[in-house]
Amino acid sequence: MNDTFLKACRGEKTDYTPIWIMRQAGRYLPQYLEVRARGKGTFLDLCKDPARCTEVTLQPVDIFGMDAAILFSDILIPMEAMGLTLEFQEGRGPVFPNPIQSEKDVEALIIPDPTATMPFVLKTIKLLRAELKVPLIGFSGAPFTLATYLIEGGSSKVFLQTKKMMFQAPELYHHLLEKISRCTSLYLQAQAKTGAQALQIFDSWAGILAPCDYARFALPYVQSIISDLRRMTDVPIIYFANNGSTLIEHTVTAGADVLGLDWRINIKNAIMRVGNHAVQGNLDPIALFLPEKDLKNRIKKLLEDARGAKGHIFNLGHGVVPQTPPEQVRIAVDAVHEFSVR
Amino acid sequence: MNDTFLKACRGEKTDYTPIWIMRQAGRYLPQYLEVRARGKGTFLDLCKDPARCTEVTLQPVDIFGMDAAILFSDILIPMEAMGLTLEFQEGRGPVFPNPIQSEKDVEALIIPDPTATMPFVLKTIKLLRAELKVPLIGFSGAPFTLATYLIEGGSSKVFLQTKKMMFQAPELYHHLLEKISRCTSLYLQAQAKTGAQALQIFDSWAGILAPCDYARFALPYVQSIISDLRRMTDVPIIYFANNGSTLIEHTVTAGADVLGLDWRINIKNAIMRVGNHAVQGNLDPIALFLPEKDLKNRIKKLLEDARGAKGHIFNLGHGVVPQTPPEQVRIAVDAVHEFSVR
Repeated sequence: MNDTFLKACRGEKTDYTPIWIMRQAGRYLPQYLEVRARGKGTFLDLCKDPARCTEVTLQPVDIFGMDAAILFSDILIPMEAMGLTLEFQEGRGPVFPNPIQSEKDVEALIIPDPTATMPFVLKTIKLLRAELKVPLIGFSGAPFTLATYLIEGGSSKVFLQTKKMMFQAPELYHHLLEKISRCTSLYLQAQAKTGAQALQIFDSWAGILAPCDYARFALPYVQSIISDLRRMTDVPIIYFANNGSTLIEHTVTAGADVLGLDWRINIKNAIMRVGNHAVQGNLDPIALFLPEKDLKNRIKKLLEDARGAKGHIFNLGHGVVPQTPPEQVRIAVDAVHEFSVR
Repeated sequence: MNDTFLKACRGEKTDYTPIWIMRQAGRYLPQYLEVRARGKGTFLDLCKDPARCTEVTLQPVDIFGMDAAILFSDILIPMEAMGLTLEFQEGRGPVFPNPIQSEKDVEALIIPDPTATMPFVLKTIKLLRAELKVPLIGFSGAPFTLATYLIEGGSSKVFLQTKKMMFQAPELYHHLLEKISRCTSLYLQAQAKTGAQALQIFDSWAGILAPCDYARFALPYVQSIISDLRRMTDVPIIYFANNGSTLIEHTVTAGADVLGLDWRINIKNAIMRVGNHAVQGNLDPIALFLPEKDLKNRIKKLLEDARGAKGHIFNLGHGVVPQTPPEQVRIAVDAVHEFSVR
């Protein structure tokens, strides 16, 4: 068992810097596309098929030697389990045809028992643990990020409906967030109980909030989930607030062990502000298109800049894009391993 | 003549905090929509009609008592003048059907004489100066931001083509940026000569760059334009690098008098880092949807947080959104004026 990743999360000494990359099992991999095509169904069907989920989760570990695997799933799976209709439309991303608009809508949401409603996720975790020689990361969306999809009915540009609800109907907003948080808390607890060895909370849209709004409308729900988790498990918790460089003063209070960083900040600068946290990140995903020599130099520099960290897990600053040549991912993984040997 | 805005730009003492808002002449105003409908043509046709441009530029000044007017135009107008086909497609935004891909494409770009190719802009400035009792702001896009549209062929999400060109064909990229910069420099000089009393450079997409890439691929071109301008005019220059909180250490070297700030950062935090610059910003545009009392409180707090600034021009952290009720803009303008009286 390669536990380098877990050690880095805990700020323990490691022989080298571990690496995994967000969306490492995904569309840039021909092997993934093959599995996707074989099953014929939709993306959601794939998420609910433990055998295929296991297969694609293992791919980047087997192909590139990643130091951690992340459960193949989608952050919106538990939102469907709350009773909402969820569709993935080609080119439009996730869509909730009946977005949350009223107290009645919020009241209709159920708090799902993960074992009963999302058995496929827990089954996948079990299958993966039987195969994996590296730690398995479970994950969820952060309540605020999940709420944006539910309120906007999908992705958004300026998040008008979400902010309008915050500003004009704060009680409704907080009621919704409480229910999402309870669901998410149970969901992550179930993942840890079943065998996930670390948990990442993705706050993909945190960066659209002014710091004062983030502190009031997003952060408390992350804190509450993490404090629930702390009572039942000691698995490392990673919190990734995307585009969140101006929120670090707040995100350090979330209760996580590791803070994920997007690529917009120099990692050295971030490390000075994260206190007693390990950090994860933060190569620009598009930097994977650099010529080999330049890519290696950039990775070397990033590793040097991260030397002062309590712990460093190498990652991209956001998900790998589908157009990325797999060979470039291999170069990056090898470079991280080579340059970080201590 | 109300010169409060110009004084604030220069860091001189003012009786109150001046305000204008990005996209203040625009789709949220019924009076604007009326002018737009009256002319029948496209958005580009409106941009090229000095009489209607003058009319819509004056509207927010007359209606709300803004402390500055900003020329009604589009940052892509000079890109069309460089010889490119530009279309505005409903729901898709600006489109360049023939994006820049090769050295041949870059060589084909002309450096337009603004007087000959964009006389409508200069005519509008003259008409406005004859009417206005507040300062007139001219503007352009920053070369990097303009380049993204030319390379991507329109708006983008991850800016893959732009970054690929930077990383894989840096000579081509720099050649393109040099030509855009020369065009932009002449364009802003012509605006100042014709009567623009301040100039804002919009770097709408600066925030997608890692700080090291911003320093190499975007900032030098802003510096070069500003240094050209300094040789021929002393009008205040505002540089707005959107989503640029992690770039402040670089943007302070651009040479501008004023740094525009988006809403993602607490203005007090930003002011500590901007050195000898005035600041402009930075209310979340969606905060205009707050109930009156909350909106006023937020504005009061922002004004207090900005007290330590060398100069402060109140603005939104990005453009006002079309759905904004005009009455809310009135509340904001009045609140800024009322709460900032010294």
